[in-house]
Amino acid sequence: MLDRRQIDAVVSMALDEDAPHGDLTSQVLVPAGVTATAELVARESGVLAGIEVFAAAMTALDDRVEVDAFLEDGETFAPGDVVARVHGPARALLQSERVALNLVQRMCGVATTTRAYVRAVEGTGARVVDTRKTTPGLRALERHAVRCGGGHNHRFSLSDAVMAKDNHLAVVGSIGEAIRRARAELPHTTHVEVEVDRLDQLDEVLDAEPDTIMLDNFSLADLVAGVRRIDGKAVVEASGGITLETIAGVAATGVDVISVGALTHGVRSLDLGLDVVVGS
Amino acid sequence: MLDRRQIDAVVSMALDEDAPHGDLTSQVLVPAGVTATAELVARESGVLAGIEVFAAAMTALDDRVEVDAFLEDGETFAPGDVVARVHGPARALLQSERVALNLVQRMCGVATTTRAYVRAVEGTGARVVDTRKTTPGLRALERHAVRCGGGHNHRFSLSDAVMAKDNHLAVVGSIGEAIRRARAELPHTTHVEVEVDRLDQLDEVLDAEPDTIMLDNFSLADLVAGVRRIDGKAVVEASGGITLETIAGVAATGVDVISVGALTHGVRSLDLGLDVVVGS
Amino acid sequence: MLDRRQIDAVVSMALDEDAPHGDLTSQVLVPAGVTATAELVARESGVLAGIEVFAAAMTALDDRVEVDAFLEDGETFAPGDVVARVHGPARALLQSERVALNLVQRMCGVATTTRAYVRAVEGTGARVVDTRKTTPGLRALERHAVRCGGGHNHRFSLSDAVMAKDNHLAVVGSIGEAIRRARAELPHTTHVEVEVDRLDQLDEVLDAEPDTIMLDNFSLADLVAGVRRIDGKAVVEASGGITLETIAGVAATGVDVISVGALTHGVRSLDLGLDVVVGS
Amino acid sequence: MLDRRQIDAVVSMALDEDAPHGDLTSQVLVPAGVTATAELVARESGVLAGIEVFAAAMTALDDRVEVDAFLEDGETFAPGDVVARVHGPARALLQSERVALNLVQRMCGVATTTRAYVRAVEGTGARVVDTRKTTPGLRALERHAVRCGGGHNHRFSLSDAVMAKDNHLAVVGSIGEAIRRARAELPHTTHVEVEVDRLDQLDEVLDAEPDTIMLDNFSLADLVAGVRRIDGKAVVEASGGITLETIAGVAATGVDVISVGALTHGVRSLDLGLDVVVGS
Amino acid sequence: MLDRRQIDAVVSMALDEDAPHGDLTSQVLVPAGVTATAELVARESGVLAGIEVFAAAMTALDDRVEVDAFLEDGETFAPGDVVARVHGPARALLQSERVALNLVQRMCGVATTTRAYVRAVEGTGARVVDTRKTTPGLRALERHAVRCGGGHNHRFSLSDAVMAKDNHLAVVGSIGEAIRRARAELPHTTHVEVEVDRLDQLDEVLDAEPDTIMLDNFSLADLVAGVRRIDGKAVVEASGGITLETIAGVAATGVDVISVGALTHGVRSLDLGLDVVVGS
Amino acid sequence: MLDRRQIDAVVSMALDEDAPHGDLTSQVLVPAGVTATAELVARESGVLAGIEVFAAAMTALDDRVEVDAFLEDGETFAPGDVVARVHGPARALLQSERVALNLVQRMCGVATTTRAYVRAVEGTGARVVDTRKTTPGLRALERHAVRCGGGHNHRFSLSDAVMAKDNHLAVVGSIGEAIRRARAELPHTTHVEVEVDRLDQLDEVLDAEPDTIMLDNFSLADLVAGVRRIDGKAVVEASGGITLETIAGVAATGVDVISVGALTHGVRSLDLGLDVVVGS
Repeated sequence: MLDRRQIDAVVSMALDEDAPHGDLTSQVLVPAGVTATAELVARESGVLAGIEVFAAAMTALDDRVEVDAFLEDGETFAPGDVVARVHGPARALLQSERVALNLVQRMCGVATTTRAYVRAVEGTGARVVDTRKTTPGLRALERHAVRCGGGHNHRFSLSDAVMAKDNHLAVVGSIGEAIRRARAELPHTTHVEVEVDRLDQLDEVLDAEPDTIMLDNFSLADLVAGVRRIDGKAVVEASGGITLETIAGVAATGVDVISVGALTHGVRSLDLGLDVVVGS
Repeated sequence: MLDRRQIDAVVSMALDEDAPHGDLTSQVLVPAGVTATAELVARESGVLAGIEVFAAAMTALDDRVEVDAFLEDGETFAPGDVVARVHGPARALLQSERVALNLVQRMCGVATTTRAYVRAVEGTGARVVDTRKTTPGLRALERHAVRCGGGHNHRFSLSDAVMAKDNHLAVVGSIGEAIRRARAELPHTTHVEVEVDRLDQLDEVLDAEPDTIMLDNFSLADLVAGVRRIDGKAVVEASGGITLETIAGVAATGVDVISVGALTHGVRSLDLGLDVVVGS
Repeated sequence: MLDRRQIDAVVSMALDEDAPHGDLTSQVLVPAGVTATAELVARESGVLAGIEVFAAAMTALDDRVEVDAFLEDGETFAPGDVVARVHGPARALLQSERVALNLVQRMCGVATTTRAYVRAVEGTGARVVDTRKTTPGLRALERHAVRCGGGHNHRFSLSDAVMAKDNHLAVVGSIGEAIRRARAELPHTTHVEVEVDRLDQLDEVLDAEPDTIMLDNFSLADLVAGVRRIDGKAVVEASGGITLETIAGVAATGVDVISVGALTHGVRSLDLGLDVVVGS
Repeated sequence: MLDRRQIDAVVSMALDEDAPHGDLTSQVLVPAGVTATAELVARESGVLAGIEVFAAAMTALDDRVEVDAFLEDGETFAPGDVVARVHGPARALLQSERVALNLVQRMCGVATTTRAYVRAVEGTGARVVDTRKTTPGLRALERHAVRCGGGHNHRFSLSDAVMAKDNHLAVVGSIGEAIRRARAELPHTTHVEVEVDRLDQLDEVLDAEPDTIMLDNFSLADLVAGVRRIDGKAVVEASGGITLETIAGVAATGVDVISVGALTHGVRSLDLGLDVVVGS
Repeated sequence: MLDRRQIDAVVSMALDEDAPHGDLTSQVLVPAGVTATAELVARESGVLAGIEVFAAAMTALDDRVEVDAFLEDGETFAPGDVVARVHGPARALLQSERVALNLVQRMCGVATTTRAYVRAVEGTGARVVDTRKTTPGLRALERHAVRCGGGHNHRFSLSDAVMAKDNHLAVVGSIGEAIRRARAELPHTTHVEVEVDRLDQLDEVLDAEPDTIMLDNFSLADLVAGVRRIDGKAVVEASGGITLETIAGVAATGVDVISVGALTHGVRSLDLGLDVVVGS
Repeated sequence: MLDRRQIDAVVSMALDEDAPHGDLTSQVLVPAGVTATAELVARESGVLAGIEVFAAAMTALDDRVEVDAFLEDGETFAPGDVVARVHGPARALLQSERVALNLVQRMCGVATTTRAYVRAVEGTGARVVDTRKTTPGLRALERHAVRCGGGHNHRFSLSDAVMAKDNHLAVVGSIGEAIRRARAELPHTTHVEVEVDRLDQLDEVLDAEPDTIMLDNFSLADLVAGVRRIDGKAVVEASGGITLETIAGVAATGVDVISVGALTHGVRSLDLGLDVVVGS
């Protein structure tokens, strides 16, 4: 579900950044004719995401590079597992290595983190979704990684859906008016979500019939009350500082969607290495 | 030391990603004439990095936006500190908010992490440096953040300096030959660094007079021995899985440079918020 | 509601296309110091759209060009009306003229056409919406023009909302399954619309609870029946070869949305001219 | 005669516009392995233009898509004619469909309109040419379509040839001086055309020996007089509000070139459809 | 006559090339607040070309840089002459210096060389023109420099005019047929030039009425005969290995145009220096 | 050692410049099916550089073009030598010809000039290096050509290494301080070079231990004294107006590096032609 054109754009940008005028070391030390084989090896356990991105980076510099992947995105690996094998001109492999790893390590980090959150809410109906707290330039990749981890995506960008927050409401004056104006002016396909900070706002909000109501920074008790009050008339999203420790409790309140900035906001890149065996 | 052209390129890319065809919510709910004031507020303590990037993002959509910064990059803040104040058309502020925060939060995360590592080696002569494990597309920004935290940078990219690793040496046959070839073919301004995995390689390496010798994954005892053996004939870099817990010990061995992938590889974005007061 | 960055990108591309290496005629015949005043004059009546785009094109080549607009987008003009006045260096005015006119003429054409369709359904609750049959590269501008004419927009692109058509359904097997799969995998903010070709498909469709049901190429009688059957459980969109002659009848059936490819698909550019008075 | 690089640039831009982050519907509903066959079918009669552009759009997303064209640009089709057949991965076909159709429909519209104008002047020596009233971004494509319809092109852009109009002449003072200056300063390969509004200007103009004289908004009688007066000393171009009804009369006056803004300025896109048969 | 957009594109590209991630030296050694004044000083005599390009490069990095030019393009300077003065932040001046000089030195070299050729033909009617042997990426700038030197331009590119050479004629079969086909298919504004290698080809060529006839590698005697034979029926261009020593003789034969690859093909950059006085 | 991505970027830019909307002549005169064979023939003797760039330009427009090279970069050719043979569609060959030649001619000019300088210092230990006086946009290509000629490169750009010149020193106050500051703030991999104008500056400079000392515009006697004084403690670079006549004397002084702006600053493009044999 990751667009090939988006992958190529990111990979090309990253390769340019990492070698604006070539890889001095490989050019000088590795003869053009030397080939190599390399294995992408997991150094810790996790969820795979971005194998296509990895392959795109490894093959971008030389058409003769070939990548065989042994796992698909969304599958898990253990320390020592060989995720993919790469073969081709050694110069190309050595020049692409860091970029390919930087991308796949980050994506696996997001997927693995997401998987943990998803596991924590298993059995409830709640879906774990990402936010717009993604790395600038890598949103499409990180959203894909969230899906690989079993999570879901929220809107892609400001151009996708309405999210009326307190700042907007301060201008418009009333939540109802905000929703009505969005409905009146925007496409019928535009989802209208509204953020609510207190239980007592719900009556007015429900009158205006938003598609989703976000309960921001609610206590568990208030979430329960909110879900009951909304009663299926809108999608209910819980948001605000939710952690791996607290998410199960949030899910148990019956909310439909739990948005977690931490899925992409502060993720440790996973440790995968590229073990290169230079041939001839 | 961060180039304005680089900042603008990143900010422009990020704004396009986050609103390919405008901010639906602001367009519909915020009249064009409404202005707002917002404060960039620290929600936790840390080291500031990227205030110029934040300002560039906030002002990119509308020339009338003004940013007053109260701290400079490299200064510290405590929870509640107001780092900067922004004033201008509310639509522009609301549309830029997420991008500006995503960038400055990440940069502050890198700077704050770096500061911790730098503190840990204080009093030794060792400098803490970054690696090429940066976020694709954000390398210049993250390197700047490392400097804000008191760290130093390693080479910018593959085009900057030679780093002969085991993979290269496997092809060339001997470390000495690798260094000689680099010296013979590359500019006299090209720094030649070579990675060494075992103490017994040092004699051959030293004969070839590299500029820097990286001791990769050495025990503390071997680092001490390596430093003594090299004896000022090359810069000594320690590398490999160094953490905040272990770095003081490494620094105590007398190495000159300690490269830490974790400065940029798995950094939690710092929590800073933009508190918007919409005016009229 | 038209993003400044989008306007500038289109204008810059158009100016490059129309003068890849300058305007030979103006360079040779018009001294650098000569200024001119020009008026954008309507040669026929219509609805204004794109006055900001016109201004962006006129000012793009020289900062000293100034544009005073006398009408706003969405207002109407009659033959002879002066819509805007431009003043500045004559070379810049003469070089920008054609690009500025090509853009504003097309946008006014779309707005004026749309206004006619919108008038035809006045009094009914139906909204007139555009389709993806826009001019490649000008979608954002043409959608804005539709809004200026009183119309509404449909989804912006394939990345915005689900529209399950017969081709997709042939693969998935059942409409219900298609909707369920979209709900399961896509963001909760993604609007799901499904195209229906026959009345007898409605029961299955309604069971799956899509957000919008498009009744494609339905007779008026079938539209009436469809609206009654759907009974508010989804937005009802009528589509398929609807013309200015037939739209009133379609609107009278009670559908919510009528999509009209002709708003953008075959629109005559409106006749507005730029009357230049070269000064000194 | 349409440059491959120009085609690819337009197609790439259009695909990005229509799916900035992928085709949600196909990604969710169409498995990656499903293939499809589709036919480009004419729904009305016309002249083909842009079959290469259509093919470029259909194949841009996946190398495995194959296009067999049964007609060449410039050939005519009747309702029901299959113009081309496409085969390949269904996702790629469904995602490219709208862009490919938007482009080829517009180009066929231009070619078909042009053909009608060309037919109307058949037997006279006059050639029908386009103007710079083209769609911004699509000029090369629309000019190609004009040629497919049997028309000819005027200058490509402001950088190609001199066209001295009343605005320029107002500055220079005299037509003769304008032509002399253009001759003196511009390449000997630069064609110099001058616009004339009244018969009595011709003597001065002819003295200065322009390459082409445009008789703007002349009556038929004045055109006859103008052609006789110019007497082969320059190419004679008629211009100004010429329609399908009036063009035969204009051609009969003996002018060499008739420029018609309507070839590209207000053309209805032709109705061609893509009938997709999804396979497996 | 040099387009501002073209200048900016070249300058931006050149600055990126020369400092992909900033000017290390200035960043480290020059405090942000230091200003400087610099003078562009001629170290040898020559013809100025590109003063706007120089100014664009000097001001591109910092809006506060100001440039005062004391000469205009086309004017001459002697050793020691101060051509322009620059004032602004020292970092910006030092970073732009090399790029600004590389561009203006090359342009002055082209202008000065051209001036010598133009002087050599003074008093004859012949114009000296450039060719397509320009530096890739700098054609617009080098053509401007040719004009500054008193020369004229030939066609800008392959898209501008027809130039039928022996290779083309080998395919078409006859010169006459080539010219007729070009006339039939291309715009009436397209200049048709044909290359002729021998005097005996002229009869056939003249029958087909080209706009320009290029006499390629003709002896002076044959040029005289060719000019007489053509007798004003076409522009006559002499071409082929013409040098500063031979051009006067060629001009004396009565040809209209002499194309000289050496104007741009092998030009020594002129020596101008930037004398920087760093202030505070 | 020339990056494929860099070659392609230059070639693409050059082809766009030389034919923004196609090659009118070939399109009209050469049928699509005609193929041709062409030989790249040396018209004078020299050193080959850029054969890959030539091949990239010849093949860029049509995948069917094939290039066989008979010499490698760095090898020499004599007048009449066939350097490469090209075969493919005639249109593509004719359209690419000029761009391919412009690039390879310039690169061979640089390589051949460099070879002469390198020959002149043969037997001494000195290496001949280029400067930043390269053609904007072509630096990577020209540096490669320098290497083909047997020369070496200096730093690539301002981002690569520190070069402290008099302008910088005027600000910092002392050379020693400048070097210390650079060492303290920049990566340990950054080479620090300092320019010295007089012998008596050497003591202070040597104390600060720069990597390279550039002796700028020194007399031969002073160079000898400088080399002796530096005595291997830093690389010694001679610079300033060095010509083919003077370089041997400079090399004899024992300097390590001689930088020569003339390698790229005023090079005559070498005469190589493309002899096309159009086939069918």
